[in-house]
Amino acid sequence: MEQNLSHTMSLLARTPHVLNALLRDLPETWTFRNEGENTWTAFDVVGHLIHAERENWMPRAKILLQFGEAQAFDPFDRAGHFRKSQGKSLGELLDEFAFARSKSLDELRALNLQPGDFGRRGQHPALGVVTLSQLLAAWAGHDLTHLHQLSRIMAHQYRESVGPWSTYLGVMQCAGHGSA
Amino acid sequence: MEQNLSHTMSLLARTPHVLNALLRDLPETWTFRNEGENTWTAFDVVGHLIHAERENWMPRAKILLQFGEAQAFDPFDRAGHFRKSQGKSLGELLDEFAFARSKSLDELRALNLQPGDFGRRGQHPALGVVTLSQLLAAWAGHDLTHLHQLSRIMAHQYRESVGPWSTYLGVMQCAGHGSA
Repeated sequence: MEQNLSHTMSLLARTPHVLNALLRDLPETWTFRNEGENTWTAFDVVGHLIHAERENWMPRAKILLQFGEAQAFDPFDRAGHFRKSQGKSLGELLDEFAFARSKSLDELRALNLQPGDFGRRGQHPALGVVTLSQLLAAWAGHDLTHLHQLSRIMAHQYRESVGPWSTYLGVMQCAGHGSA
Repeated sequence: MEQNLSHTMSLLARTPHVLNALLRDLPETWTFRNEGENTWTAFDVVGHLIHAERENWMPRAKILLQFGEAQAFDPFDRAGHFRKSQGKSLGELLDEFAFARSKSLDELRALNLQPGDFGRRGQHPALGVVTLSQLLAAWAGHDLTHLHQLSRIMAHQYRESVGPWSTYLGVMQCAGHGSA
């Protein structure tokens, strides 16, 4: 199944609202604890989503449309958000993300993509040749990956508290699958 | 770490808003497709959450407080929602869940639990002796398990569409961990 632009945008537009509903003003038990050494907190995840929004998805879509396979996308620093989030509150990050997402969706709409555009190809610095359609689908999949991660980070804080129920709670068995 | 009632309630109160933000009026691509045979759609998950809200969490807390270990909780039918969701729209289910959750939280507040209550014990029909604290933590963990499942069900719909990006998207590697 190929991504459908309106379905993709419908999901992308919701993510800031989902994160607001889940995280804003939530006790820090849930938002400022991670899953152990070298793992992220919910705060870190929101910082990463902002960074990806500004440096990754739309900038790459524009490079693909402008240069095709002739120019590889700039590499994306997956830890690039740590410095940028310093000193900010989670509420500020949630506002920043909502603003950045809204701006990218405006830019995406302004591209006025036509059916023939989705097969256009670009060069990912590690994955090789990718299509615009794959990039747009991956943008939505990236939101879902981090929602998946957030539910897991939060569940981790109650791993001991649930006692024998952990057997029934799938999220407590999730090992993170490497990337997130 | 033992669950903290106000932290637990803070999370429980947010879940209906999270599901609304994520699912209401979302294209059916995301909400009425599952992960393959004998798996659930997002619609099914919301139905299950309603069913658990009415038949599982608060009813069991009350049995625990009234009878202690002397009376096991009634078994919970994890497929009990299928019949009850029939003919309803996802919007109706989201409304029902919000109403049921609000009612359970009112009942939970009305119990006026004191620190000494959290260690009180009850009898789970399969897991054996459990404490009230574990039950409350598991209620929150159950919300997170199904949020984890929802992100995975939705990501599954774009499994092919993302092409080579699937390597980087942890949710695409999630095998569901048995229970959800």
